[in-house]
Amino acid sequence: MESALTRAVETEQPLMRRLLGLILPGSGKRLRPALALLCGRVKEHRPEPLVSFAASLEMLHTATLAHDDIVDEAEVRRAEPTLNVQTSNSIAVLVGDYMFAQAAAHVAATGHLGVITDFAQAAMTIIGGQIDEAWAGGSVDLAKDKYYRRIGSKTAALFALAAEGGAKLSDAEPEVVEALGRYGYQLGLAFQVVDDILDVVGDQQSLGKPVGSDIRQGTVTLPAILVRDQLPDDVFLSAFRGDGHRDDSIGQLLETIRIGGGVDGAYVEAERLTAEACDALGVVPAGEIRDALLELASFVVRRST
Amino acid sequence: MESALTRAVETEQPLMRRLLGLILPGSGKRLRPALALLCGRVKEHRPEPLVSFAASLEMLHTATLAHDDIVDEAEVRRAEPTLNVQTSNSIAVLVGDYMFAQAAAHVAATGHLGVITDFAQAAMTIIGGQIDEAWAGGSVDLAKDKYYRRIGSKTAALFALAAEGGAKLSDAEPEVVEALGRYGYQLGLAFQVVDDILDVVGDQQSLGKPVGSDIRQGTVTLPAILVRDQLPDDVFLSAFRGDGHRDDSIGQLLETIRIGGGVDGAYVEAERLTAEACDALGVVPAGEIRDALLELASFVVRRST
Repeated sequence: MESALTRAVETEQPLMRRLLGLILPGSGKRLRPALALLCGRVKEHRPEPLVSFAASLEMLHTATLAHDDIVDEAEVRRAEPTLNVQTSNSIAVLVGDYMFAQAAAHVAATGHLGVITDFAQAAMTIIGGQIDEAWAGGSVDLAKDKYYRRIGSKTAALFALAAEGGAKLSDAEPEVVEALGRYGYQLGLAFQVVDDILDVVGDQQSLGKPVGSDIRQGTVTLPAILVRDQLPDDVFLSAFRGDGHRDDSIGQLLETIRIGGGVDGAYVEAERLTAEACDALGVVPAGEIRDALLELASFVVRRST
Repeated sequence: MESALTRAVETEQPLMRRLLGLILPGSGKRLRPALALLCGRVKEHRPEPLVSFAASLEMLHTATLAHDDIVDEAEVRRAEPTLNVQTSNSIAVLVGDYMFAQAAAHVAATGHLGVITDFAQAAMTIIGGQIDEAWAGGSVDLAKDKYYRRIGSKTAALFALAAEGGAKLSDAEPEVVEALGRYGYQLGLAFQVVDDILDVVGDQQSLGKPVGSDIRQGTVTLPAILVRDQLPDDVFLSAFRGDGHRDDSIGQLLETIRIGGGVDGAYVEAERLTAEACDALGVVPAGEIRDALLELASFVVRRST
């Protein structure tokens, strides 16, 4: 899969190679391809279409990150300056588009119409989630159910696609496909919750971006939602919106999240979500694939980057 | 096809409907879908996949326009403020992405793996052409062959896809598919040459954007290339780059293009390209489809908007 990604960058004209090289190799965890490659061995194992599919997931993910960085005006990602900073917003828009098209070409190469259709639908869901976040991003009273719906679109839909698509390419029984889709979705929710926790408790070096980035970008996430009632409205508003003594408000909010139950409470929810993910694996035959999926669920909560 | 486009806008959540409605209905000529719908009747006629395919072409085209307007910082398109002006660059990036994903879903609905694969490849070509133009846009000594390569990627590739994909969905013989692909490609080149002519001789109202937009954006096109030798280098440079008395230089350049053979010479090339397009139709059975394709080629050169 790595060499498929490397080939996708290398075979282009020099300019494109340089631009794609700025976003693709990175230090990504390759979680989505890993999930697809595992689920793609649940019954049959057809390496070629499976590797194309796994590569298409990482490309779609990278394309959405490149465009997300434009929307968020982010300057650092994976410890490197973002593409929009290294080149320009215009070039970053087009390079992200090119990566979308490459993703489409790779999923087409699977030759599996069901998987291709799921891929396009998932892309619509993911981008719909991004639009929702960009448009209503500033609302500090985001309800918990709305938060889950948003991360469901933004993150879990791609994890579900990875698992379900892998299972389809493996020619798994419909109930196994469905179960792995549910596993992927719950795992994706847990992954995003932990991501949102690490944004407040991680350290800048291992995160590859500043601590508290979400707050500074005005994005309300679960750890903040869980402590919202413990803080005066104006502190909350000032931390997210930037009026008044913003740095003080952010410091106060981060402190409350860390010691007031925001982090612990969010971890409890992440544990519950991965437990639900693992429950879904009941119909998957016992063996090394199921063991690896259980292990992956545990890694998603334990990870520190 | 129109109702498929309307449905694509209508079935979304309110925010999305509003945003998509800003870019999709427009007053577009729907040339690419028209080409697909014609070629899709060259042998068999299967309305459902064909309409999905035609809609996917218009969506892909609209998505690339939305992103192109960000890159060019364009303010007006089809006589309306562009999406980036009506909302923001960020929202325009994401809405364009959403339209890409919708296009992918519609082409997937054709159920034709060959057409889906061609679609993804064409998208890569088109975006590659846009990147090339955005990156090297400012070079005023663009050679004619490079210009043709660029518009081949940027415009003709999509016309070729429309014709070839339609023919494939119609289950046409391989030599007919290939011939219609060539027809579409040459037609697309002619279409873009005429577009570039209209940018200097059209009137603002029927163009839906200011005359001379390409020059102001620093984009060198065929009419300017054909008169480049008749003007001092510094006038050319000042018109495209904006140094010195830019308005004077642009006026001088437009005048030279109009009376110095830029327009006439470009029309000669457009006529040659459509003649080549029509020549390719030799293997297409005589009848109303071939007649309509011949008529379409003639319209592309005669059009005034």
